[in-house]
Amino acid sequence: MATLKDVARLSGVTVTTISRMLNNRVNVSEKTRAKILAAMEELDYHPNELAQSLIKQKSSFIGLIVPSAKNFFFGAVIDCVERHVCASGYKLLLCVSDLDVNKEVEYFHMLKSNKVAGVILASHTQNLSEHVNLANLPLVTIDRTLADSVPSACADNYAGGRLAAEHLLDRGCRQLAYISGSAGIEMDANKRWVGFCDVCRERGAEMPVMVDASERDFIAMRYEPLIHQLFQEHPEVDGVFSSNDIIAAQVLQYCSQQGIEVPGRMKVVGYDDTDLACLTTPPLTTIHQPVEDICRWAVERIVAGESAGAPEARVFPVELICRQST
Amino acid sequence: MATLKDVARLSGVTVTTISRMLNNRVNVSEKTRAKILAAMEELDYHPNELAQSLIKQKSSFIGLIVPSAKNFFFGAVIDCVERHVCASGYKLLLCVSDLDVNKEVEYFHMLKSNKVAGVILASHTQNLSEHVNLANLPLVTIDRTLADSVPSACADNYAGGRLAAEHLLDRGCRQLAYISGSAGIEMDANKRWVGFCDVCRERGAEMPVMVDASERDFIAMRYEPLIHQLFQEHPEVDGVFSSNDIIAAQVLQYCSQQGIEVPGRMKVVGYDDTDLACLTTPPLTTIHQPVEDICRWAVERIVAGESAGAPEARVFPVELICRQST
Repeated sequence: MATLKDVARLSGVTVTTISRMLNNRVNVSEKTRAKILAAMEELDYHPNELAQSLIKQKSSFIGLIVPSAKNFFFGAVIDCVERHVCASGYKLLLCVSDLDVNKEVEYFHMLKSNKVAGVILASHTQNLSEHVNLANLPLVTIDRTLADSVPSACADNYAGGRLAAEHLLDRGCRQLAYISGSAGIEMDANKRWVGFCDVCRERGAEMPVMVDASERDFIAMRYEPLIHQLFQEHPEVDGVFSSNDIIAAQVLQYCSQQGIEVPGRMKVVGYDDTDLACLTTPPLTTIHQPVEDICRWAVERIVAGESAGAPEARVFPVELICRQST
Repeated sequence: MATLKDVARLSGVTVTTISRMLNNRVNVSEKTRAKILAAMEELDYHPNELAQSLIKQKSSFIGLIVPSAKNFFFGAVIDCVERHVCASGYKLLLCVSDLDVNKEVEYFHMLKSNKVAGVILASHTQNLSEHVNLANLPLVTIDRTLADSVPSACADNYAGGRLAAEHLLDRGCRQLAYISGSAGIEMDANKRWVGFCDVCRERGAEMPVMVDASERDFIAMRYEPLIHQLFQEHPEVDGVFSSNDIIAAQVLQYCSQQGIEVPGRMKVVGYDDTDLACLTTPPLTTIHQPVEDICRWAVERIVAGESAGAPEARVFPVELICRQST
């Protein structure tokens, strides 16, 4: 295996200069830099980042824990986080939890053992702090709050619920329904239902009906039985708001199968504004989550470390994107 | 920061025994194990994996390079790979390339510097071997081949093209079309077109027409102009096969907007069998890629290292999944 001395010999640059360049401690001329890089490439020499991390007792890894990587919303989160992690000179250790608190705990131990610079937690379990010592580990949560001491980034879920109800009532709906994907977990997303109800109450409209998906439905992405149940029990419903675009896409399928015209007889609003919302027939009106802003803030917060200041619960604005389903 | 000695003091177990347990070199009783783990938890002690990796000159990281994490197909690949990586006792370093060869080269250098156990490459660029020394790095490619010396896992793209043509002709289509998402890149997926044409030729059917998406279309996931162009230039087309489900979903949207009945007047077959195929209206007939089998094989191959034997180009069978779009 090639050493720094070999690179020095081949490039004609001293070991000290090369070492300083690799540690970003000195600016070398473009010409010298090119000579060093060419020699490194030819010799297949790679500075040992593990050794550097060990000396600093801190690696350039950032951990991201998500419940699933194939869920469209979390796919977008992973994509955004990776870009910002990479642009900041860090690397992403991806952890998929399946909503299993034991897996989450194991991931935390693993990430600590690898001296990560920080962890971004976008997974669902709430009782993690009972199992893991969260001290001494820069941590940011996305779309959920763990404790006042942990910075969190959420979209404005209450406003999202309000926007959906206002839009559906404005379009003439008389009986609204909400399909929740929260599976009974205490999440910030539950505020959508509160905002949705508040608007109905304020406007003197019928109070909306609600059905809630199970954790199994979330993992399997299958909501047909729940949708079927809703329309069987409440045939008067003419406007549906669902807590993610995947549920909404299945409402559109159900309506098509049953010959219920969308948006004429039934209006449908999703949540998240994932790429799926542009791919359904008809394209889906939905609440846009600012995934890009949320992920950038979370990564910046980790990279800033202690200089980021006191923990804060940051709330990001949402927006209604009107397409052909309403 | 707590040390191994602190754990020994608190648990009443010797440093030697704890160290042997952590390195899996000795079996300790359940009772002793529980005492050690409780002390580790209380002291927030984590064995330093970086130091262990440095001693072994090999980390327990596996790198995965994909063009995008929000694309539904690659989301499924990431999800599967992470599960198998984790189940094998490794950790996933995720790298998103945006189809940018410079980014891919940088990722390779980074992964080498971190002494990864291996790399799984599912990104599109073909000329990587001109830029990176691929020796001394266990590497497996998914859905593309780099060189005979690099093991690869592909689905049977030729058979996929044949299955689609046979199905559309069996359902009574007379003029087939293929929408390719390969963006002119030399990929194994291009064999789908060969298989598709071979069936038309063998059956004496009209030869299919073809349009090809650009790299920009792939990243943006927007294929409407291409679909519009196809139907303008070839109004006689009554059966469409597309090289991914995202294109097919947009064909369904186009048909709905234009009042072209699916599957009556137009039949549509996608590719990949991503979760999207179950969420379109109507649900999409598509060619199922065995992502689970491909990813498991790729991870096993990396984990086996040199004991995996000679490089091989493994081809996995595909399957037509019939839904309501045909």
